[in-house]
Amino acid sequence: MSIITLTTDYGLKDHFAGILKGKIFSILPETNIVDITHTIDKFNVLEASYLLSVSYAHFPKGTVHIVCVDASRNADTVHVAMLYDGHYFIGADNGIFGGLTSKLNAEKIVQINIHDRLINGSSDLDVFATVATHLAKGGEMNVIGAPIIEIKKMNVLVPIVDQNAKFIRGNVVYIDDFGNCVTNISKSYIEEIAKGRQFSIRFSSHSIKKVKNNYSDFKDNSSAALNAMAGNEIAIFNQDNFLEIAIYRSNPSRSGSAQTLLGLKIQDVVIVEFTE
Amino acid sequence: MSIITLTTDYGLKDHFAGILKGKIFSILPETNIVDITHTIDKFNVLEASYLLSVSYAHFPKGTVHIVCVDASRNADTVHVAMLYDGHYFIGADNGIFGGLTSKLNAEKIVQINIHDRLINGSSDLDVFATVATHLAKGGEMNVIGAPIIEIKKMNVLVPIVDQNAKFIRGNVVYIDDFGNCVTNISKSYIEEIAKGRQFSIRFSSHSIKKVKNNYSDFKDNSSAALNAMAGNEIAIFNQDNFLEIAIYRSNPSRSGSAQTLLGLKIQDVVIVEFTE
Amino acid sequence: MSIITLTTDYGLKDHFAGILKGKIFSILPETNIVDITHTIDKFNVLEASYLLSVSYAHFPKGTVHIVCVDASRNADTVHVAMLYDGHYFIGADNGIFGGLTSKLNAEKIVQINIHDRLINGSSDLDVFATVATHLAKGGEMNVIGAPIIEIKKMNVLVPIVDQNAKFIRGNVVYIDDFGNCVTNISKSYIEEIAKGRQFSIRFSSHSIKKVKNNYSDFKDNSSAALNAMAGNEIAIFNQDNFLEIAIYRSNPSRSGSAQTLLGLKIQDVVIVEFTE
Repeated sequence: MSIITLTTDYGLKDHFAGILKGKIFSILPETNIVDITHTIDKFNVLEASYLLSVSYAHFPKGTVHIVCVDASRNADTVHVAMLYDGHYFIGADNGIFGGLTSKLNAEKIVQINIHDRLINGSSDLDVFATVATHLAKGGEMNVIGAPIIEIKKMNVLVPIVDQNAKFIRGNVVYIDDFGNCVTNISKSYIEEIAKGRQFSIRFSSHSIKKVKNNYSDFKDNSSAALNAMAGNEIAIFNQDNFLEIAIYRSNPSRSGSAQTLLGLKIQDVVIVEFTE
Repeated sequence: MSIITLTTDYGLKDHFAGILKGKIFSILPETNIVDITHTIDKFNVLEASYLLSVSYAHFPKGTVHIVCVDASRNADTVHVAMLYDGHYFIGADNGIFGGLTSKLNAEKIVQINIHDRLINGSSDLDVFATVATHLAKGGEMNVIGAPIIEIKKMNVLVPIVDQNAKFIRGNVVYIDDFGNCVTNISKSYIEEIAKGRQFSIRFSSHSIKKVKNNYSDFKDNSSAALNAMAGNEIAIFNQDNFLEIAIYRSNPSRSGSAQTLLGLKIQDVVIVEFTE
Repeated sequence: MSIITLTTDYGLKDHFAGILKGKIFSILPETNIVDITHTIDKFNVLEASYLLSVSYAHFPKGTVHIVCVDASRNADTVHVAMLYDGHYFIGADNGIFGGLTSKLNAEKIVQINIHDRLINGSSDLDVFATVATHLAKGGEMNVIGAPIIEIKKMNVLVPIVDQNAKFIRGNVVYIDDFGNCVTNISKSYIEEIAKGRQFSIRFSSHSIKKVKNNYSDFKDNSSAALNAMAGNEIAIFNQDNFLEIAIYRSNPSRSGSAQTLLGLKIQDVVIVEFTE
């Protein structure tokens, strides 16, 4: 059975995600629709791009990912479908897929051109549902669009290494529901630059000596010891293997989070500093 | 495969929507359950009625729509099932379906009478799950209820035209997750009254000359020009073809919305004024 | 078709619930995944335990329930799978299942031991998805873990009866999305202790003479009379048959709730007092 995922900034109040599912099931009743999230910060292409990049590969090859964030067509923004790493992506060519194609080339990209073939009064949701179900059924990309070579790059925040490879300078690109601050610096990128050297983490006036590999990565990891750590600031490689500044066992609604306690916000600088 | 949709004011914290799905799948494992929304303003029958009216038709005929908003039975409120425009609706006869039947007659309405047939301790959720799965399987309405002629009308806010057809007076009936204010004045209704005349939109001390047909409906619709429009107040026919007062590219959590910036709230008056 | 439910504190913003579904469907495409909730108060094992205990039985026997709340392994917390009352439960042995096993013995418990068999870089989500799909397909528990005798009890708040059975002293254990305050005192427990005696409810300086059996349980239960009750404080046996202190027709976002109006919070004492 095929899978179609949804990543939107529709929020949780309105009916848009629901009717998109209605349109999909109207065409293809036998498919699994999975919500990645509907609470992307509105019009925030950067946030959507991060979540998409760390989510898609957990689905089987052939999965179709619909992204509805700032998805209106305009003079210089077309709708595209892209085959990338064995997955299909559908959305507006507003830079949202540029984060993916900066790592790996797309296998195929088409500019969707079925808009005029749909009945009068059709919306973007009809376009996306029609394209998604076509691809989920194994349809050809050429049937729904004309091949194009390149998609837009986003002004993505990519980490920078200094000339002497003494540090990596990255940025906070996502703040999760626990209030933890995710950077664009991956574990594998640090290892590639480190070549075996030790490193520490710096941001604003803070410094952290060691990056945890998970939330139980402590010498004394009894429940009592870990509970006593609650509220401490730590650096950790998150589930998606990105460096994250976190407050241990943070509950933003009660005790505060890395975002609130350390004053970190999207785009703030985080440094990985290597020592000989 | 059949589809059952859910529209409730249960919110997103509690288990009620989850256990309703459990009850449905217990009876009918092969069905697609779609959430329309669970965050209807609590007990707000008007809001539920609007979302239902603009959602149901995006699903295939035969879809079963469960509505759990102010759904307790009492001395003058029974549970009903209704066949309307080829769709089934289940809920309390509290006026919530009156918005639909003001446009088109129901094909059939029954007062649900299976409550006593269910085992002791059964809840409204059991009733709704039993009726929904019965109808989703193609069961007869007569088996689960006794025919009735009419359902309750709600004190719905319907737009009014003045004697000389110089204006339409409508109201804000829904505020969406972007903070945009949806009125009960449809595009087709305006066209019917306009008979080709121009019109402008008025509310409180504001006046808007032109209604956009979508969010790219501008002379210069390059991304740069559209982004520069962010924060402007506009009138637009929304996806569901209702007149909406919006702030262009509004993000309620950061920059404010039509609701907050223009001070609009549910039931506020919006005028369509025709010019010769 | 099998059912797998999810109860987590992941919140609604992040991608974790989505990718867990991706992992499950990758292994077992033909299953129904149902969200119980993803908005458990973060790390709140008590809240998760309550919701789980009142939710699971609404699903068919054989359903697999994944619970991801404070689910990291550490020195004294292992991952477990449990067969209980015909249902499978998967999560960390952090006390979360102790509320269940205090009522009924588990049929079988295993300590999950497949972590090392999964590929490098696998996360807890991979472990839970692998175990859940194995059990959903009817697999043996012994294949994914080693039998253990007991799971951890939580420091659960259980109601206490005084020596002379003159009162039951319970506590608020859950506050629902309507702001109503659910206690750990069940209707059947009151009846067992009451032996036919009358009783009233007391908390802080409040006293309520009668417990309603549902929200229409009033002498005059016309819509008009019930609407006029809005804002009154009542005691009611909720859908799950627990004693609940509620504000009639409360809307926390507008009019206040039992939590805000009566100042009740988690762990506050509620007394059932019997009269001869």
